[in-house]
This record gives sequence, structure tokens and C-alpha cells, in this order.
Amino acid sequence: LTTVALDAMGGDHGVAVTLPAALSALRDEPDLRLIVVGLREPILEELKRHGATESERLRVHHTSEVVGMDEPPAQALKNKKDSSMRVAINLVKSGEAEAAVSAGNTGALMATARFVLKTLSGIDRPAICTVLPTIHGHVHMLDLGANVDCTPEQLLQFAVMGSILVSEMEGKARPRVGLLNIGKEDIKGNEAVKKVHALLRASALHYCGFVEPDEIYFGDMDVIVCDGFVGNVALKASEGIAKMMAQFLRQEFKRNVFTKLAALVALPVLRKLGHRMDPGRYNGATLLGLTGIVIKSHGSADASSLRHAILVGSAEARRRVPHYIGQALTAITDGRQSA
Amino acid sequence: LTTVALDAMGGDHGVAVTLPAALSALRDEPDLRLIVVGLREPILEELKRHGATESERLRVHHTSEVVGMDEPPAQALKNKKDSSMRVAINLVKSGEAEAAVSAGNTGALMATARFVLKTLSGIDRPAICTVLPTIHGHVHMLDLGANVDCTPEQLLQFAVMGSILVSEMEGKARPRVGLLNIGKEDIKGNEAVKKVHALLRASALHYCGFVEPDEIYFGDMDVIVCDGFVGNVALKASEGIAKMMAQFLRQEFKRNVFTKLAALVALPVLRKLGHRMDPGRYNGATLLGLTGIVIKSHGSADASSLRHAILVGSAEARRRVPHYIGQALTAITDGRQSA
Repeated sequence: LTTVALDAMGGDHGVAVTLPAALSALRDEPDLRLIVVGLREPILEELKRHGATESERLRVHHTSEVVGMDEPPAQALKNKKDSSMRVAINLVKSGEAEAAVSAGNTGALMATARFVLKTLSGIDRPAICTVLPTIHGHVHMLDLGANVDCTPEQLLQFAVMGSILVSEMEGKARPRVGLLNIGKEDIKGNEAVKKVHALLRASALHYCGFVEPDEIYFGDMDVIVCDGFVGNVALKASEGIAKMMAQFLRQEFKRNVFTKLAALVALPVLRKLGHRMDPGRYNGATLLGLTGIVIKSHGSADASSLRHAILVGSAEARRRVPHYIGQALTAITDGRQSA
Repeated sequence: LTTVALDAMGGDHGVAVTLPAALSALRDEPDLRLIVVGLREPILEELKRHGATESERLRVHHTSEVVGMDEPPAQALKNKKDSSMRVAINLVKSGEAEAAVSAGNTGALMATARFVLKTLSGIDRPAICTVLPTIHGHVHMLDLGANVDCTPEQLLQFAVMGSILVSEMEGKARPRVGLLNIGKEDIKGNEAVKKVHALLRASALHYCGFVEPDEIYFGDMDVIVCDGFVGNVALKASEGIAKMMAQFLRQEFKRNVFTKLAALVALPVLRKLGHRMDPGRYNGATLLGLTGIVIKSHGSADASSLRHAILVGSAEARRRVPHYIGQALTAITDGRQSA
């Protein structure tokens, strides 16, 4: 059995989403065991509403506090020592769980995870890695916002971590690694990007050069590396325009009785588009570079999306991702020392 | 009459697109006069193909060279002194034209424009400003890639220039200015963004704070300021995902006979979406901060899109945008000296 600790209080909807997600994940994955962390009363009530109870595979772990979605990370870290978020991560630290999953406040989750679990030796700061849809499949991209001022060495660490994640999770021997830049030529980009480009070229990774931002969705990379500011801009700008296009479609289809009829006819196709673009299918960003597994779900995730994040956590636990990242980093460090 | 110099050789398709665009712009705008700059022979042949000839409103200005779309900017600047791009800009410098429009190589255009026209007093480096569609209308964003390592002072200059551009072109007394950032709170963002935030707050501009990247398309700003690296990432990532969504739709509608029928029914609506998202409707980025007007069209623009870029050039010429930017900068400098 793989044990995952779920922050039952995190996210915009709390137990109303986290518990249905938990039950659904348990149904899907017979080898999964969940420790549901949070205020016992609301958790038990929500379980009852779904005709479920505590069991060997669904244990409730009571905590007395909840981290607010807008609570400053430093404050959460200092004052909320019995929060559902903190305790879920503590369970990973103590070995009772192999992964923690939370839809709570990103900043607080990152700060708490870093404080409790610490980074792997050789990693300065953890990164947020997520999966994005592409025309042919998907791509892993990091950092998505944890680190806004990165050194070239940190970006190299992100590349190593992303590469190991993909090779362990997708069985690829040499994942293709690209560096986000605003052009293809060596002279393009800012100073930081040029330095990382040189570091990646000299590394043992399967580095394939610059990736322009529009190629995120059309390229053949397995991993795209960028600093957290730029990654967050790419991700959110993409979300923004996709949402605008969806709204335009809705507006146009609602215009008159003919377009409303057209909408009915086109509905199955539009649903498929919605499914292919659905961020929930890719929900569950990994906080890479820690000694344990922590998965961040979108705060607004519904039960089906959060279920996906839980399954990402259990899959990474089975593949022992942090162990292999640690090993790769040790190999790099040893290589440098012997060189 | 407003006189615009058009680089007839620029862009992916050369005279086959630039001349039809020129003729169409002249039909649309009776007060427009064009100087079409480039190799005389192909220009005259293309004019003939459209049953047109040289006239008082369409003068051909012969040049012997063309800047290649992939030619390094420094090389173009040094070796191609009689290129259509360079001469079009020279005509602005000499006062024979009030604006230059080119679909040529961005780097070469920027380098040449800067070399020939120089920046306005108070401006360190020009910025590329473009218009993006939003759910309610549109927004001006700069810099889109001219400057990849910006100082906070340069970003403040971009904000001043964007604000004047919108106030002159759209008659808004106090355009709303936003700063692109990955969060709303003061603590969010990298060091550069925090410094610009403070400068903008202290400025006389109508500064409205941080804009998150997804809000580019949903916000109520008139101008959004960012460094060129980040701006280029936001723009190209948006283009990439929009293109992917369009391809998904095409794939899904082609899947079988039922979806093909649905496509027929939905076609008018999809066309409207295409029109609202059409980058050609917004073609024509302004190189702001120079002593004259230079407009950059997409290299892949068709005649209708390039026509739009020509009209942007003539509109900015009529509104004397560089003059007003210069005035605003002088006022700021005088204010500082008297303070």
C-alpha cells in the first residue's frame, strides 16, 4: 500500500471537495491508503454524507487549525503548527505517509514543506513543476512561480530534477530538456538565460537548446526549464487567453436562435475541446527538490481534479522520485569532486 | 496629406503582400500618401499586376538592397546602407515621410531605427508596444521584446510612453497603467518589479498597480508595462495556446461525418471567434521612444494585416505621438530640476 496524507481543509471548497476526491481516489486505486488531515467533525460529517466511514484505507487525523487561502506564508509557518497543511507534511517527515497533497495556499505550502522536509543535498531551493497539454501530448515545465530571482546554477538544478522526474515517471531514459527563451539564436535572451544555456550544454542532461514560448504547446521537449517569474507569466497568460477564447465562443453561440441551435449541434465537439484543455486533467504540481513528496493542487480544483493530484502523489511515491533525484545529485557532486 | 514610407521588400512575402496592402490602404484613407521603398522593377511589376501605376499618392523610391529576415541586426546596419528598410527610416529622418512601416526583421529594424532616428531625450532605449485583444476591447502592452534586461528607470520610461500613446491615440486624459507581475500583493514579484512598483507609485501617471498575466485579457488597464523578456513570453505563450486550441477544434470537427456536419453549422460562429482573435486586426507594433514613428508589422502578415499596420503609422503621424512623448519627458525632467 502507498500512503498519502491529504490536507482535507485546503482549497476554496474544503471538505466538500477534498473528501469526495479522497473517496474517488480510493475507489480508483486499490493500493492507495489515505490519511485525511483536518478538523475531525466536518470530515466525519462529510464522510457520512457520502455513506463512508473511517477504515483501514481512510484514516482521519485530527488537527485543530487551518491555514487561510490568503494567509501570509511566514505567519502560517510561525503560528499554525497544528494546521492540516503542516501536519500532512509532518506525516511525510515522520514516514507515516509517503506523500502529502494540499490544495491550500501555495506560498504557505512551499514555506512549510521547505521548513519541515528541507531540500535535498545539492538543491538550493525547491521548484514547482507542472504538466501542460501540448498538441502531441504533454510537457513538464518548471519553475512555475516558487523562485522569482533564480541563479543560473538553480536553473541547472531545476533541469536535473525535471529530467529525473520524467525519466522515473514516464520511463524515458534521456528526457529532452529545453530552456525557455524568446528566440532560438545564441545571442537571444537575457544574461541569466545565456549563462544557463552554457551550463546546460556542459551538463550530462539531454539538453536540446532554446524553446520559444509558443513552442511550449507544439514542441517535442519532455522538460522545459525557466525561472519562476517567467514560468508563472507563461502559464497564467496562457490560462487567460484560453479562458477569453472560451468566453468569446460562449458569447457568439448565445447571440441568437440560430447560433444557439449551432451550439447544440457543436456541443459534443466543444466538450471534447474542453476535455483536452481541462486544467483538471493536469492538476497536481510537484514541489521538486525536497526530501519528501508534496503535491500542490489548484485551490479551485473540483473533486475530479483533486483526485488527479492525489494519484500524482501516490504515483511519485511508488516511483520514489525524491530518492532518485537525490541519487542523481550525489552523482553530479561526486563527479565534480573527482574531476 | 500624411506621408508614410513603406518598406516594400520586408516580410515573408515581399512585394506580393506589401503592394496590395499599400493599394488597399490608399483606397481606405484619402489623406494618405505612400512612398514605396525598394527594388523598382519588382515593385512596378506588382503594381502593374494590380492595374496601378505610380501617382502623386504612390511614389516609388528605388533602393538597391534588401535586409534578410534572418540577417543579424549589426550586419544589416553596417553593410546594407541602401536597403529598403534603412531608406524608409531615412525618409522619416529627413522629414520626407512622417512614419516608416516595415514587416522586416525586428532586430534589424530596431537597430536601424535607433541608429538613424535616435531616442528622444530622456529615453534610454526604445520599446516595442503592441495592442492585444481583451474580453472588453483591447490593451496596449510594452515592452514586447526589444529590451531583455531592463532597469527600473527604463520600465518607468515605458510607462510614460505607453500612457502618452494611449492618451493621444484614444483621447483618454489619464490612461490606466498596470505593471505585469505574478501576484497582487506588494511582496510578490522579483526585485526589479518591486522597484518599478515604487517608481510608478511616486510618478504622476495614473498607476493602478500589479496586473497578473491572466488579467491581461480580462482587466481594465489601458497600458501594461513589463520588461521585454517577460512581455515576449506572455505574448508568444498566448499565441501558442490559442493556435493549439484552434488546431484541437479543427481536429475534433474533422473526426467523422457528424462532427463535419456540426462544423458546417458552427462555421459562422467559429469565423466570428477567428475574427475577434485575429492578430491581423492588431497588426502594427510601435517602436516607441524614437524621434520619429516606426511601425513593425508581423513578418508573416497578409495584405489586410499589413494595411492595418500602415494605417497605425499614419494615425500616429497625424497625432504627432513622438512630439507629445518628448513634451511629457521634458515636463518630467523640468519638474525634477525645479524640485
